[in-house]
Amino acid sequence: MSDISLPPALDRLARLLGRLPGVGERSAHRLALFVLGQEPDYAHALGVSLAELHDLVRFCRDCHHFAEGQRCVICADPRRDCALLCVVEDVPDLLAIERCAEYRGLYHVLGGALSPLRGVGPRELTFDHLIARLDVLQPEELIVATSISVEGEATASYLQNLLRGRAVRLTRIASGVPQGTDLEYLDQATLGRALRARLPFGRG
Amino acid sequence: MSDISLPPALDRLARLLGRLPGVGERSAHRLALFVLGQEPDYAHALGVSLAELHDLVRFCRDCHHFAEGQRCVICADPRRDCALLCVVEDVPDLLAIERCAEYRGLYHVLGGALSPLRGVGPRELTFDHLIARLDVLQPEELIVATSISVEGEATASYLQNLLRGRAVRLTRIASGVPQGTDLEYLDQATLGRALRARLPFGRG
Repeated sequence: MSDISLPPALDRLARLLGRLPGVGERSAHRLALFVLGQEPDYAHALGVSLAELHDLVRFCRDCHHFAEGQRCVICADPRRDCALLCVVEDVPDLLAIERCAEYRGLYHVLGGALSPLRGVGPRELTFDHLIARLDVLQPEELIVATSISVEGEATASYLQNLLRGRAVRLTRIASGVPQGTDLEYLDQATLGRALRARLPFGRG
Repeated sequence: MSDISLPPALDRLARLLGRLPGVGERSAHRLALFVLGQEPDYAHALGVSLAELHDLVRFCRDCHHFAEGQRCVICADPRRDCALLCVVEDVPDLLAIERCAEYRGLYHVLGGALSPLRGVGPRELTFDHLIARLDVLQPEELIVATSISVEGEATASYLQNLLRGRAVRLTRIASGVPQGTDLEYLDQATLGRALRARLPFGRG
């Protein structure tokens, strides 16, 4: 909604900021006034950064992560372990895995999860490219890190069928009780899954 | 903090967005990825809006609200009641009063509240201009709508002394129990103030 008590330039900025996720009308006003209260350098830097964004950033030709140039910083890093390939749904998932600093292999970004209801079938995702990449990379292990949800599980099953008979060890990220969670408050599905997937715990 | 797993253009944008109030590192990533996921038109429009902001927006020469051109949309509106002048600390306070749609007079934005600790004395605020404006406007009533806080009250007292002997009715916004609040959970200062400021409630 347009605010007639603001000058048009400020109102225009507030309405554009209001389209960002999690930014309501009041927050948009607050953000616009904050930017106006900063040195003009900040607004200019942000403006330039936004204007050049779509020209500079594209998909990595190898893994479909975002990249400047043909390959992303991960695929271009010779220290990454090419024997490990981790399949994720999207870039935020990749960033989350990078943040936990447990993984030093490569990635493959599918571009989403299978979802017949939303019209996302195998052709909408990067499965074909994944198969072609496996032939070239010949990794030892492929970690399926799609989400633990109906759609993520469907996508994982599809991959399982697709790769049947290939000389690659297929693994799936563990699902179970998250750290710091009291069993009492955990949903039944997760607890049931954690019980079924129980691990040996004997001495030695 | 810079994220080395993002392409530089996206990381640059995320770091700039991370300087906005209430936007942490993860939110900044999320916002940057959201913008990248939209049509380029959106990023361009936001970029242009930011780049032109400081060139287009200045202070209203009359009330110190933000304006494009010399006077703000409120001062330039002939339907506003010139007999009423409302003094506020800053623009967000003005916008809050506009939103409640109870007030159709003019404003005067002080630019803050008196605060010796933060080095804000009378000379840092727009009191001199307010006095000059009173001589021209000759309003019937001046509503002091500075905040109900130590600094807001000090500013209100200063105004009270400054305007002593002038032919203008001075009023202060009411302070008391906010709507929908249970007395049990209200702070002592507010409740004490509401008791001291009690109003006649007799029949007729």
